[in-house]
Amino acid sequence: MESKKRRGILERLNAGEVVVGDGGYVMQLERRGYVKAGHWTPEAAVEHPEAVRQLHREFLRAGANVIQTFTFYCSEDKLEISSNVKSITGAQINEAACDMAREVANEGDALVAGSVSKTPCYLKSHSEPEVKAIFKKQMDDFMKKNIDFFIVEFVDHVEEAVWAVEVLKTSGKPVGATLCISPHGDLDGVPPGECAVRLVKAGADIVGINCHLDPLTCVRTVKLMKAGLDKAGLKAHLMIQPLGFHTPECNLGGYTSLPEYPFAMETRAMTRWAIHKYAREAYNAGIRYIGGCCGFEAYHIRAIAEELAAERGFLPPASEKHGLWGAALDMHTKPWVRAKAGREYWENLLPASGRPYCPSMGPPGDDYEKQLES
Amino acid sequence: MESKKRRGILERLNAGEVVVGDGGYVMQLERRGYVKAGHWTPEAAVEHPEAVRQLHREFLRAGANVIQTFTFYCSEDKLEISSNVKSITGAQINEAACDMAREVANEGDALVAGSVSKTPCYLKSHSEPEVKAIFKKQMDDFMKKNIDFFIVEFVDHVEEAVWAVEVLKTSGKPVGATLCISPHGDLDGVPPGECAVRLVKAGADIVGINCHLDPLTCVRTVKLMKAGLDKAGLKAHLMIQPLGFHTPECNLGGYTSLPEYPFAMETRAMTRWAIHKYAREAYNAGIRYIGGCCGFEAYHIRAIAEELAAERGFLPPASEKHGLWGAALDMHTKPWVRAKAGREYWENLLPASGRPYCPSMGPPGDDYEKQLES
Amino acid sequence: MESKKRRGILERLNAGEVVVGDGGYVMQLERRGYVKAGHWTPEAAVEHPEAVRQLHREFLRAGANVIQTFTFYCSEDKLEISSNVKSITGAQINEAACDMAREVANEGDALVAGSVSKTPCYLKSHSEPEVKAIFKKQMDDFMKKNIDFFIVEFVDHVEEAVWAVEVLKTSGKPVGATLCISPHGDLDGVPPGECAVRLVKAGADIVGINCHLDPLTCVRTVKLMKAGLDKAGLKAHLMIQPLGFHTPECNLGGYTSLPEYPFAMETRAMTRWAIHKYAREAYNAGIRYIGGCCGFEAYHIRAIAEELAAERGFLPPASEKHGLWGAALDMHTKPWVRAKAGREYWENLLPASGRPYCPSMGPPGDDYEKQLES
Amino acid sequence: MESKKRRGILERLNAGEVVVGDGGYVMQLERRGYVKAGHWTPEAAVEHPEAVRQLHREFLRAGANVIQTFTFYCSEDKLEISSNVKSITGAQINEAACDMAREVANEGDALVAGSVSKTPCYLKSHSEPEVKAIFKKQMDDFMKKNIDFFIVEFVDHVEEAVWAVEVLKTSGKPVGATLCISPHGDLDGVPPGECAVRLVKAGADIVGINCHLDPLTCVRTVKLMKAGLDKAGLKAHLMIQPLGFHTPECNLGGYTSLPEYPFAMETRAMTRWAIHKYAREAYNAGIRYIGGCCGFEAYHIRAIAEELAAERGFLPPASEKHGLWGAALDMHTKPWVRAKAGREYWENLLPASGRPYCPSMGPPGDDYEKQLES
Repeated sequence: MESKKRRGILERLNAGEVVVGDGGYVMQLERRGYVKAGHWTPEAAVEHPEAVRQLHREFLRAGANVIQTFTFYCSEDKLEISSNVKSITGAQINEAACDMAREVANEGDALVAGSVSKTPCYLKSHSEPEVKAIFKKQMDDFMKKNIDFFIVEFVDHVEEAVWAVEVLKTSGKPVGATLCISPHGDLDGVPPGECAVRLVKAGADIVGINCHLDPLTCVRTVKLMKAGLDKAGLKAHLMIQPLGFHTPECNLGGYTSLPEYPFAMETRAMTRWAIHKYAREAYNAGIRYIGGCCGFEAYHIRAIAEELAAERGFLPPASEKHGLWGAALDMHTKPWVRAKAGREYWENLLPASGRPYCPSMGPPGDDYEKQLES
Repeated sequence: MESKKRRGILERLNAGEVVVGDGGYVMQLERRGYVKAGHWTPEAAVEHPEAVRQLHREFLRAGANVIQTFTFYCSEDKLEISSNVKSITGAQINEAACDMAREVANEGDALVAGSVSKTPCYLKSHSEPEVKAIFKKQMDDFMKKNIDFFIVEFVDHVEEAVWAVEVLKTSGKPVGATLCISPHGDLDGVPPGECAVRLVKAGADIVGINCHLDPLTCVRTVKLMKAGLDKAGLKAHLMIQPLGFHTPECNLGGYTSLPEYPFAMETRAMTRWAIHKYAREAYNAGIRYIGGCCGFEAYHIRAIAEELAAERGFLPPASEKHGLWGAALDMHTKPWVRAKAGREYWENLLPASGRPYCPSMGPPGDDYEKQLES
Repeated sequence: MESKKRRGILERLNAGEVVVGDGGYVMQLERRGYVKAGHWTPEAAVEHPEAVRQLHREFLRAGANVIQTFTFYCSEDKLEISSNVKSITGAQINEAACDMAREVANEGDALVAGSVSKTPCYLKSHSEPEVKAIFKKQMDDFMKKNIDFFIVEFVDHVEEAVWAVEVLKTSGKPVGATLCISPHGDLDGVPPGECAVRLVKAGADIVGINCHLDPLTCVRTVKLMKAGLDKAGLKAHLMIQPLGFHTPECNLGGYTSLPEYPFAMETRAMTRWAIHKYAREAYNAGIRYIGGCCGFEAYHIRAIAEELAAERGFLPPASEKHGLWGAALDMHTKPWVRAKAGREYWENLLPASGRPYCPSMGPPGDDYEKQLES
Repeated sequence: MESKKRRGILERLNAGEVVVGDGGYVMQLERRGYVKAGHWTPEAAVEHPEAVRQLHREFLRAGANVIQTFTFYCSEDKLEISSNVKSITGAQINEAACDMAREVANEGDALVAGSVSKTPCYLKSHSEPEVKAIFKKQMDDFMKKNIDFFIVEFVDHVEEAVWAVEVLKTSGKPVGATLCISPHGDLDGVPPGECAVRLVKAGADIVGINCHLDPLTCVRTVKLMKAGLDKAGLKAHLMIQPLGFHTPECNLGGYTSLPEYPFAMETRAMTRWAIHKYAREAYNAGIRYIGGCCGFEAYHIRAIAEELAAERGFLPPASEKHGLWGAALDMHTKPWVRAKAGREYWENLLPASGRPYCPSMGPPGDDYEKQLES
């Protein structure tokens, strides 16, 4: 077990293994009472470590091979603007987050990934040295704690992601880079294939997509990244950590352009059965680092691990408390509930919303944004 | 603060205070990986106390004045049939659950309620002495830990609930009794008003409804209970702990007759804004013990506490991380998100499901049950 | 054939035959360009007889045994308020309408029913002599043309319907009386059973429901009427001519309280297959005069006649151009269309609206009315 | 007036006038009882001329400038396969249809267009001489009656349409050609722009799209045709006659791949207000011949004529019976109905389906076809 733990992210991916990522932190901790929506900053790592630790544990138990540090939006410039607890510094958060991630990762076969996200500085200054200095500062915090690898995530301009990769590669650690973009490309109009090429040329070992759009859309975007790499004769591992919400109407900007964002997303939440389908599609697309972002709770991660149990060779710990495909329902006292104890039932169910006054889809993203802005 | 903590459930209700209940445990812990659906038994109190403790804390932080012991389905006869971990006894669970509930309750101004639910023995034997012996055993476990009061819940035959109340009243502790029935009455056809009368005559200090149906339907049923009490010249406190799901199609049997039960309920989950409306309706109906059951997460409980903040005189701790009615969005970088920072927006939103191939409602409960049974 | 034509409405009903009614005129002729919505008056009988005649013919061809005169809202007091062509008198319309109805009825085995509807005078004056004088005038017009029987329809106060029946019975012709009320009763709160009793006591030979609500709701109301008659030891024939629209949200006032009324009702239109179900339910409830009102086009009437073909002993002429239950699709060139050539397919289809931005249901009637009035 | 009538289709279009087309015949006459679904052949022109004539009149009255002969699928080879009345020949139908179209056209300012549609022979033989012989025969029938121009329609292989145009141009009459294709191109994969180029090179004076898909999708396809012509330096008039149904899920094959086709399309029917939007979009795209196909009833054609009343300089006759944008509702007795008397209300309404058990969208076309074929 000990030696297995020590195997790094690239060893695993190079060996063709499936790496299960963890789920989303900020939206789930908002619901639990530890993160403030609008701010979305991670002071809870310092204020309420037991809450963050428990969420890490749920993901580990659900099958995650990676615990990401709870450091979203944790650059100094972002905290200055957005933090809701001014007395806690970014360095404090980064440090506490690394310790907790390591503590939980060591409880199972998981690695710690230091997570770095987009900076306000990029849009404001567009200055490469300034932005890189911010990433450097975060990297230094993480390197003190010897995290296993880096993930750049939630960046919607490939140029900023390239800068982040260039900085983080100086650490000597592997770097994964995920953009939060649609199949149409990044916010400068760079198509996914070209984005992937730039990231790999900058040194990224793993490239892919996270957040902003639903799983199958994100799989589509990663496929476009792969096609771009193939055409350029480049190679990289692929990763994906999409939303756990149905977002068929979204445009470039993703779920922030939905009327329901962020406080009425419940009805869009995916079932575990939809995640089975996603995990299979992602695997079939050649993606081997498969996780989730906002909306992914522990049971969604467990669904990835259960769908790919044959490929991985084992079930996650939490499956002790889960009859696969609802099998445990066969001991229910009601016969019509027992009738649901199987894959065919759940795979074919089209769940009703229970909301006959609500539409299925919202207005197209761009229209909606314009309307609210005016 | 110390003296305030010591005030009992009846002192509070007699004083006209709003008591906020906690949310649902088994469905949430199923998602987190600690409870097995179909079984729904609470071995996690012994196996994974940190997970249960964290969920207690979330509810406390969200404003709950009561922490219910995590002892659902924890009678010996039910565990014999349903437990998924045979090596753990009911007594062990009851004991561990009481300790944890007390530990967390003491972190705030909360009471511990020992929770007792329906027994398979009732349907099987219909024997008053046998059923009462089972309740007596549970009561004894709880009394060793000196819980503050009892809640009988999730009972769908008023007769069984009456037996439970008669046993628990021998402890000298206050007793609340909630049935999981619809406005049409219990499974023997006894109307809600008559059910309430029988429970109060048996000694219940608080009566009401929990689980099985959505909040506004449950408010309707509690109103019928109150009308029955009024007509009989009886008085009791009223409580309510409904589902956190929209269930417009349900019949007598409640949400177990929905196609989505139990693994595809996501799309029916209520938003926090729907809970505001529920809390107000419940309050207006004269109900003063207001909580939730399956589907109620911490942020739903917080919504009750926020809606009734004026009546209670304070906000819950978790509101530090919540801009009331989305107020904190006014610092968002996107103008169309900032436009949502207020009550009017959220109160009027009809959330889309993002599922254009799915219906709004499922087939009427009875039809569906017949279909699956055949 | 000749003798068969001469058999009156009561002869047929007394013999236990199914009498198929015709469909709706004003909404269909509005779409065709001959009636003005809001006014809904029948000047087209004089202005564009060919258009009215063609619609009569479609219903006859679809199986109707009764052609109602196109005289909706054709009392002098209503025309004064609502007519959109002031130069045409009520007497002119009544006369032209009777001629056309007779002309078409004689092309098949159909009777002519003179149709009389509610008067503004009733609400304004509440004067029995004044209201009765209005009905008398219409009756005299119709008697000049020797129509076969009378139908009082679209009346929502049973008192007014009773007055109409009392007048029309003086003609010596049979009288049918249909109220446009919900299962909750008429606008004075008189329950359907009591309404039926009063109508029969006033002399009505046939009683029932028309317009305002969807077919299955109207069947429910007619059942309540029948129960009232049974309880009172009275007997009468039952008739029904409901909307051809799905109206699950309607309250007392019926479809006029829907947001879609009157210019966006398309999406609520019933399929022919839903009409099959209605015809069977109506028949099973003991109703033998089965037709339609607003929203019922010729193919809906044909569906009644096809569903009850075995009971009636024949198919309507238009079935020459209709493969029963879609049977004619078996000669389609596309295999997936051929696969639909049968009852099972159509009976089980849940048709999609093609409108993902629209809800399934509108706001409850009362709320909506209040909102628009304010 | 007489001289105005004589102005030909090209004179009008060359002068920049808007030409309003007529609506759909076969689906509407199926509902009225005169056409058999699956067959869809036009024997009714001979059997029930009064019914066809009345529908022509409704379209004329609604504003149509063109009356198309009721000759859909009226080639000898198609009739041999599909006709449901074998004793009536194609020549008989063509002749009767021309006479009726002329009779009605002369009642207003309308032209007669001889309509020719795709032949089974094309798919079966792929023989240019054979297919052209069939078109030649139909042309000869029409020329005996001196129709004003030809329309080739409902062809999904551009090659067949080109052959038809080549034949019909020998008559010396103007020729319009509309394909029933999606923005993806014809069934051989020829993109819309290229299709338009081939049709114009073959001699078509007017090109465009009809049937198979909803209005806004068809506008998109016509725009692609225009772009192709522009790029090739060619010029032609543009026309459009789309479905009157919402079909967001359709693939290449159009509405025949919907579960609801052809007997449950009600709920997809467009409102008059959606047609206003379509007419404006079509006009803005430079299309000047604007009509409809299946699902377009008289009131939809009236909506085109009303939306473009300013551009055309007059309202259609049927607008006498239509308060523009619901204006006539301001005399309704119910205040909440009066509140709807205006454009803002109807333009913003999202109509409910009244069908809470039905989805908004069906399965994607290809999946559905596969499923039904297997």
